[in-house]
Amino acid sequence: MTDPAAPSQGRRSEDGSSDFATARRNQPAVETSRIGVDAGRIQAQLAHLATFTDAPPPAVTRVLWTPTDGAGRAYVSSLLEEVGLELRTDEIGTIYARWSGLDPSLPPVATGSHVDAIPNAGLYDGCVGVVGAIEAVRALRHAGFVPTRSIEIIVFASEEPTRFGVGCLGSRLMSGAMSPDQARALRDGEGHGVEEARRQAGWSGPLESVRLPEGTYYAFLELHIEQGPVLERLGLPIGLVTAIAAPATVRAVITGEGGHAGGLLMPDRHDALTASAELILCVEAGARGTGSIDTVGTVGQVSVFPGAVNGVPSEVRLSIDVRDVDGTRRDGVLRQIGDDAAGIASRRGVRIDLEVVTTDLPETMHPDLRNVLEASAADAGLATHPLPSRAYHDALFMPRICPTAMVFVPCRGGVSHRPDEFTAPEEVANGVRVLAHALARLSE
Amino acid sequence: MTDPAAPSQGRRSEDGSSDFATARRNQPAVETSRIGVDAGRIQAQLAHLATFTDAPPPAVTRVLWTPTDGAGRAYVSSLLEEVGLELRTDEIGTIYARWSGLDPSLPPVATGSHVDAIPNAGLYDGCVGVVGAIEAVRALRHAGFVPTRSIEIIVFASEEPTRFGVGCLGSRLMSGAMSPDQARALRDGEGHGVEEARRQAGWSGPLESVRLPEGTYYAFLELHIEQGPVLERLGLPIGLVTAIAAPATVRAVITGEGGHAGGLLMPDRHDALTASAELILCVEAGARGTGSIDTVGTVGQVSVFPGAVNGVPSEVRLSIDVRDVDGTRRDGVLRQIGDDAAGIASRRGVRIDLEVVTTDLPETMHPDLRNVLEASAADAGLATHPLPSRAYHDALFMPRICPTAMVFVPCRGGVSHRPDEFTAPEEVANGVRVLAHALARLSE
Repeated sequence: MTDPAAPSQGRRSEDGSSDFATARRNQPAVETSRIGVDAGRIQAQLAHLATFTDAPPPAVTRVLWTPTDGAGRAYVSSLLEEVGLELRTDEIGTIYARWSGLDPSLPPVATGSHVDAIPNAGLYDGCVGVVGAIEAVRALRHAGFVPTRSIEIIVFASEEPTRFGVGCLGSRLMSGAMSPDQARALRDGEGHGVEEARRQAGWSGPLESVRLPEGTYYAFLELHIEQGPVLERLGLPIGLVTAIAAPATVRAVITGEGGHAGGLLMPDRHDALTASAELILCVEAGARGTGSIDTVGTVGQVSVFPGAVNGVPSEVRLSIDVRDVDGTRRDGVLRQIGDDAAGIASRRGVRIDLEVVTTDLPETMHPDLRNVLEASAADAGLATHPLPSRAYHDALFMPRICPTAMVFVPCRGGVSHRPDEFTAPEEVANGVRVLAHALARLSE
Repeated sequence: MTDPAAPSQGRRSEDGSSDFATARRNQPAVETSRIGVDAGRIQAQLAHLATFTDAPPPAVTRVLWTPTDGAGRAYVSSLLEEVGLELRTDEIGTIYARWSGLDPSLPPVATGSHVDAIPNAGLYDGCVGVVGAIEAVRALRHAGFVPTRSIEIIVFASEEPTRFGVGCLGSRLMSGAMSPDQARALRDGEGHGVEEARRQAGWSGPLESVRLPEGTYYAFLELHIEQGPVLERLGLPIGLVTAIAAPATVRAVITGEGGHAGGLLMPDRHDALTASAELILCVEAGARGTGSIDTVGTVGQVSVFPGAVNGVPSEVRLSIDVRDVDGTRRDGVLRQIGDDAAGIASRRGVRIDLEVVTTDLPETMHPDLRNVLEASAADAGLATHPLPSRAYHDALFMPRICPTAMVFVPCRGGVSHRPDEFTAPEEVANGVRVLAHALARLSE
């Protein structure tokens, strides 16, 4: 569905226009002692944002364009205005909040993340990069810093794939990784299209207007929790992302023959669910079978039709998610799953249709921009570690329009997408300190 | 949950009180030429009943105490009144429609079935036994027959387990196979209890009043489609049920650990869904493994939590249905599934809780009453074949209060619990002819 030919970030440093030479110099743009980041305020704001949830607390469920999502976004908007930013929202609901620099003709430095949350999630995924960016801007203002380039906080709409099955809808459209027509073809679980759903949420302008041209931003930085155990195990405060693993999402429809659970004898069955059980185990085996720790495969959604205690299932729909930092290896797993599915279908006399919903390439973070982050961590006196991101982020698509890099903070037990997701307030604050320094270096 | 010590039907014939000697004699109670059964009318009534559905036609979905179920029951009540029967409804919604005999002091002869339908069902399961009974009464009246014993048509509430996970709620309570307290402890998928749900449907009297004492009826007959392929394959019009297979229903809750589908590495996973996939395949293998065609095992319902494309499932709930005409063999499969579940749980580091919801004994149909049906088939000039019922019916519980037997008519391809379930009108009419003769023989 998406264009596999993502532009390489490398060429920008080749032509010298984005090597960030000034931003990478040894001296900080703002003295570290003047950057006061308040860990308690960040924590309080994250906790308040978590009260906008459709799940029993502490679980957080904030699905795109629900009233709860709207209320959470309104709270975030109030925080953005509180630090003096000018807001605009695009036609898919992504919020842009600008701190105008001395030279508004220069492309701004952007940072941000998302505040939508999958069912039964925690309070850090995405929110740390939004609330943290607000705190970074507050700290810079308080330090008396005056940016030359504008600084913009972006709150992306629909980073999570919960509603339409496709993650990063906002950044895909913004960066051109997905066309408006492709977006319009998407349907949610109840059959509602993107156009209908966004109109109900209050956006009725043309989806085409969401697209931003290459060069709109000088750079994009995303602060995020690691969602993995590496930094915690190493005891290091800051991760600098080298590359984002390549996610692929496949929808499978398994069609068998239903019947009475008592009357339909075992040899006569073409049970869609037992065939699906084999397929689920093949996804697991395929991911384990590459021999690399970097390959993961997951079936997260299953629906069984007709869903009667005493009826043999005639149709099952399930989602398959396969990721790897190596796109070729990931595609090998997808091919293996396809072969396995064909074997199951033939052996069991069922039909298995696999539809590739998204298959993105892994993305390397901009090396010179990573060096800016490295220098910024040094400004804050924090040690760093290079590591891949196995989760995807809007930073997977932003390289299409500007140099992009990511900062990770540790994540207890590597646990994410769960209510017990946790990063200590001081660890979040460390990430915000690095972000503040980097924004200052880039916008100075 | 249910009392495994079901009373044996055998002892009744031993004491001579229910050997149906008169009813088994060679002469029909009513001349066959005078019993006019209208296959077209039956078909039209079945087709009209199928218009009360919550699924797109021709699929029929009529779940207990929904408005659609209520509308279907109202239509059936109008048909019962049309043939001159007196109606009463018990406190769970079972309808009793009586044709009073010359001697109201004698226990009546009862027949009937159910009209609730699982999701995406067809129009014959259950309904044939209700609409067919009405046609049988109409035919007997038209023949000028005057019963000595009363004849009663019973339309059982909640034969299907869709809503509360337990089949035959009406006949279980009526026969004492389930206590009112056991029924009150049941919850539907939305957490509503039986008391709350039946009150909303209009029944608020004590559940205790549903129970009928042993001896309430002289006999109970149920006409039903076979829901299996035997009669069709043999080319025979009438099946006489020898025994009803023993159903057991188990609810399984598989608890693992959730997490991010990208960040949680394969060796660190305790995925509730991959564990469930193994369990689903064990149910299938367990049923196949007995080597008997009579053993069947089915998982029909699965729900996955949290159900996000990019979240590792932390909890799965599923239903397991295992049946056999041999209760000991069935229980052996249940034990095997329990052992397999323990192995999966230990190997994968997940927890698997199995709760036995129902485990009923197989039930033999009353031999003397089967002989009455045999004689009645001969009255109608129809050949019979003895066969077990692999599906359960209210006739599984009625033996607790009266001698019980069942008549089967063929079922195309053995297909049931599906929209394409089909029995030709003339085949249904054959069953009704046998039923009419039997009712006359028993009530004469």
